[in-house]
Amino acid sequence: MPLTPDQIAEIEALRATPRPTLRAVSEGMEAHLYKAHEVLDHGFVRVIDYMGNDAAIVQAARVSYGAGTKKVNDDSGLIRYLMRHWHSTPFEMCELKLHVKLPIFVARQWIRHRTANVNEYSARYSIMDREFYIPEPQHLAAQSTVNNQGRGAVLEGAEAARVLEILKSDAARSYDHYEAMLSQDGQQGLARELARMNLPANIYTQWYWKVDLHNLFHFLRLRADAHAQYEIRIYAEAIAKVVADWVPVAYGAFEDYRMGGTTLSAKAMAVLKRRLAGETVTQEESGMSKGEWREFTEVWG
Amino acid sequence: MPLTPDQIAEIEALRATPRPTLRAVSEGMEAHLYKAHEVLDHGFVRVIDYMGNDAAIVQAARVSYGAGTKKVNDDSGLIRYLMRHWHSTPFEMCELKLHVKLPIFVARQWIRHRTANVNEYSARYSIMDREFYIPEPQHLAAQSTVNNQGRGAVLEGAEAARVLEILKSDAARSYDHYEAMLSQDGQQGLARELARMNLPANIYTQWYWKVDLHNLFHFLRLRADAHAQYEIRIYAEAIAKVVADWVPVAYGAFEDYRMGGTTLSAKAMAVLKRRLAGETVTQEESGMSKGEWREFTEVWG
Amino acid sequence: MPLTPDQIAEIEALRATPRPTLRAVSEGMEAHLYKAHEVLDHGFVRVIDYMGNDAAIVQAARVSYGAGTKKVNDDSGLIRYLMRHWHSTPFEMCELKLHVKLPIFVARQWIRHRTANVNEYSARYSIMDREFYIPEPQHLAAQSTVNNQGRGAVLEGAEAARVLEILKSDAARSYDHYEAMLSQDGQQGLARELARMNLPANIYTQWYWKVDLHNLFHFLRLRADAHAQYEIRIYAEAIAKVVADWVPVAYGAFEDYRMGGTTLSAKAMAVLKRRLAGETVTQEESGMSKGEWREFTEVWG
Amino acid sequence: MPLTPDQIAEIEALRATPRPTLRAVSEGMEAHLYKAHEVLDHGFVRVIDYMGNDAAIVQAARVSYGAGTKKVNDDSGLIRYLMRHWHSTPFEMCELKLHVKLPIFVARQWIRHRTANVNEYSARYSIMDREFYIPEPQHLAAQSTVNNQGRGAVLEGAEAARVLEILKSDAARSYDHYEAMLSQDGQQGLARELARMNLPANIYTQWYWKVDLHNLFHFLRLRADAHAQYEIRIYAEAIAKVVADWVPVAYGAFEDYRMGGTTLSAKAMAVLKRRLAGETVTQEESGMSKGEWREFTEVWG
Repeated sequence: MPLTPDQIAEIEALRATPRPTLRAVSEGMEAHLYKAHEVLDHGFVRVIDYMGNDAAIVQAARVSYGAGTKKVNDDSGLIRYLMRHWHSTPFEMCELKLHVKLPIFVARQWIRHRTANVNEYSARYSIMDREFYIPEPQHLAAQSTVNNQGRGAVLEGAEAARVLEILKSDAARSYDHYEAMLSQDGQQGLARELARMNLPANIYTQWYWKVDLHNLFHFLRLRADAHAQYEIRIYAEAIAKVVADWVPVAYGAFEDYRMGGTTLSAKAMAVLKRRLAGETVTQEESGMSKGEWREFTEVWG
Repeated sequence: MPLTPDQIAEIEALRATPRPTLRAVSEGMEAHLYKAHEVLDHGFVRVIDYMGNDAAIVQAARVSYGAGTKKVNDDSGLIRYLMRHWHSTPFEMCELKLHVKLPIFVARQWIRHRTANVNEYSARYSIMDREFYIPEPQHLAAQSTVNNQGRGAVLEGAEAARVLEILKSDAARSYDHYEAMLSQDGQQGLARELARMNLPANIYTQWYWKVDLHNLFHFLRLRADAHAQYEIRIYAEAIAKVVADWVPVAYGAFEDYRMGGTTLSAKAMAVLKRRLAGETVTQEESGMSKGEWREFTEVWG
Repeated sequence: MPLTPDQIAEIEALRATPRPTLRAVSEGMEAHLYKAHEVLDHGFVRVIDYMGNDAAIVQAARVSYGAGTKKVNDDSGLIRYLMRHWHSTPFEMCELKLHVKLPIFVARQWIRHRTANVNEYSARYSIMDREFYIPEPQHLAAQSTVNNQGRGAVLEGAEAARVLEILKSDAARSYDHYEAMLSQDGQQGLARELARMNLPANIYTQWYWKVDLHNLFHFLRLRADAHAQYEIRIYAEAIAKVVADWVPVAYGAFEDYRMGGTTLSAKAMAVLKRRLAGETVTQEESGMSKGEWREFTEVWG
Repeated sequence: MPLTPDQIAEIEALRATPRPTLRAVSEGMEAHLYKAHEVLDHGFVRVIDYMGNDAAIVQAARVSYGAGTKKVNDDSGLIRYLMRHWHSTPFEMCELKLHVKLPIFVARQWIRHRTANVNEYSARYSIMDREFYIPEPQHLAAQSTVNNQGRGAVLEGAEAARVLEILKSDAARSYDHYEAMLSQDGQQGLARELARMNLPANIYTQWYWKVDLHNLFHFLRLRADAHAQYEIRIYAEAIAKVVADWVPVAYGAFEDYRMGGTTLSAKAMAVLKRRLAGETVTQEESGMSKGEWREFTEVWG
């Protein structure tokens, strides 16, 4: 369970005291504020703050004085047009601030998205909590035999049991030793900034992460994708649900044009056009490599 | 007068309808929302939205669950500590969105601050308004004789009159010609994206500009500085007043450590230490160049 | 003619003195170094420096110690794979530095690409040259009647003549007045930072612009596109030719996957799949708006 | 020893084959190219490529056509002026590409500098090497009793021995278990992207890291500082030596104005001015907090 009673009480206190504001409000997002959406065994995603809503995207695109008098219908058409034609700046006018608890190996992938603001819990300054990510049995997968950076079949039987046992006991031992090195019982106690180096990459850290909607969509496109590692994808999916409630029109356009859409190379376009004209095209004729052809036919048959 | 009655009505409508939110609120900022703070002869700065307040800086620095139970006193000390030691990420957790109307030559300096989001009024898509910046007499200054990028004495008499006359008549003529080229009266009308090239750099444009507090402080440090051109400095000063109402503790730290403070080179430190020990140090002994020594003695005598 | 004899001599001097280096070299790029590629009537693009080549992309992707022993064939496949799967960081390992002379209204579009380094000629510090962009007759186009930010038919006869006359005479007059305001003949001379505001947006400026290959590809995708304004597109096309000589494999992948390719929304994919299965699909059945359907059928018939 | 014979041979091969270039060259940097500068027990810093030199900073600041005819003396004065007045864009015109091998807990601090390009060795794709950072005895320090994020006295005797024993045996065991989980001997073998989570933060990773000189100076100012953790500071110091050979004039200015200099708050300036006038000022009169006063008197007595 990721939250203590004290933490839950703090969150409830924050949710109990609405205050008046003149800013743009998203009702869908107000319902999420501060709540912990659980992810993995000890992680979560919490919305701490947001700026803007669908109307704010339109308002910025039009550089207008007020909220505008156009119909919702027009706004939706404009937002879809902006998304279709890669006009990214109006989406940058919305901003999201999250509190996330996540394993360090997930944090190391996540931080590669540079266009965001981050404050991470400091293991130089504070002592880490004894919380480690241990995969559920159905996510304990073998190395893929076809994809160098993917997973294959789920491990079973003795192998699965042994892996789980290793992960659990190594986590426990490394944390026991971390505490022993820090301890000042009859000794000086190793500096926290040194002791932390003994902790494995499945220990949980946490951070505040703030990002604009355009860059968040880019994050979601890469990390909610089927090729992303499961342990970060599930965070991306939790965030995607929140975004759908925050800016439903923009999220709908994102789903249609980015998540649900695809890109075609010039060669792939040529093959599709020949197919539409009734021709049959082979890999050799396509000019694509075998790998490219396999990816192409997975989508287009 | 920068705003039309319709625009004023839109702003009043926005200010008339507070709505409940669970987000962090800054009372000082709510008082500014949407209002136009006039700058130069036709420009303005308007706060469109904001995220966070002083407490949000502290909350992010502590990666905490709630608003915290520490005293205001502790928060202030922490914010000043963060500013003093260049811990910039907690300040990035606050965000400001402005609507600004400004001359194009000011916009060209402003846009050099890259860590911000911008949506500008498009002269490809729309027709520019007939509004030009004409300096007030007291700002019509001669080229500085000591500083290659500064101003000297105020122009007077016939020279001042002639300059004002040139600026006004050239602006009027260029706009008349802009309209004439666009006109479809008995002709096709030149494309807007081409016609705009006839307009001078003192015509007003407008944009939505969104920035985090850390990068805004950096902007203010450079642009509210005495070395900045007057026409951008007055925008920076208008924004600084708004920020002081938004995050008074952080702004106070910024004033003390950045705006009101100074930096010393190793050589300058050595001179000051010798002076504190009672020595007299000459420029030659200081190791500084003449220009550097002049800048140093302007501050330290 | 954009360059003076002195400038040409400086360039020739730079090209006359090769020096040994241990760094990665691109022969194709050495041939371009320092030369001015003329663009528009007074503009140019000059390569000042570059870092990396196709092999450097591969080397970074593999985090390898040396230049690698893989065959060129493997390298090409890897570069195409990286481009296809949006692995952008290896392309960031190449860097290009350009010297560009361009009209201010083009510079204002260009600068919106923020992930680049820029040093622009300062009109606060220096006096601008008397050089203005005057379109050639075939680029003097009417406002498009279907696209709010595009061009239609070329202007002809009296209208074209009148527009050219306006652009030329306004440019000349504004520059005469700029000089008159700056002049110190019997007067103080207006500060350069003020006098410049009288100059129109078709005056030429120049800057050093430095960007990594990933962000340069993004720039080229947007600005070498048919929807970009002609006056920036022609700069993008000049740069694209240089890039093709610098990193021919990466540029080939960029042409295939980005410039020559297309993106499909989920709705567009569904229509294509139904068409491939022999169905006829109408706009109403497609779920697309009329504008979207028009864009779709322009590509796919 | 960080490099294998094969790796050394690759590096020697690269250093054996100079090629002609027309680009700006830094002799001081050519001497460093590809060589491994050893850091910590298994880490290194290697220069892979560079763009620009001191003259390139000046050339960009002047937006000039050639290398310039000014004397070295003028160039040095200009570079110092640019540094003193925070004109950062000319320094951005130089670029450095490094290959770095470093412990993961150091990498996690390092990556927080976002304005850089990174390609890291992928533990999803490849198997990590069995190399862990084990501090030398003199760096095995206790937690500071006055600074929450610093080190105090060096551990001694039994405590030091016990800590070293823990770090070594936990590293060895976690790597044995990592290999055991990956092994396909009679089992499927856990996916690499999962097995890596068992590895502690002192295992070495490596990356290509590319950054411009302005942002590199910012990195060095924060990470070569006495407050930085020793294990990242020693990397910063190794890089600083390389930079001093690459751009000696710019590095000299950086040392004088940034590394060797200091910043003063408005309050600190007031105290110094009163002291220079012969007054004695107490902490209470200074308006500073106790912590701030302590930091101030550490520098100024």
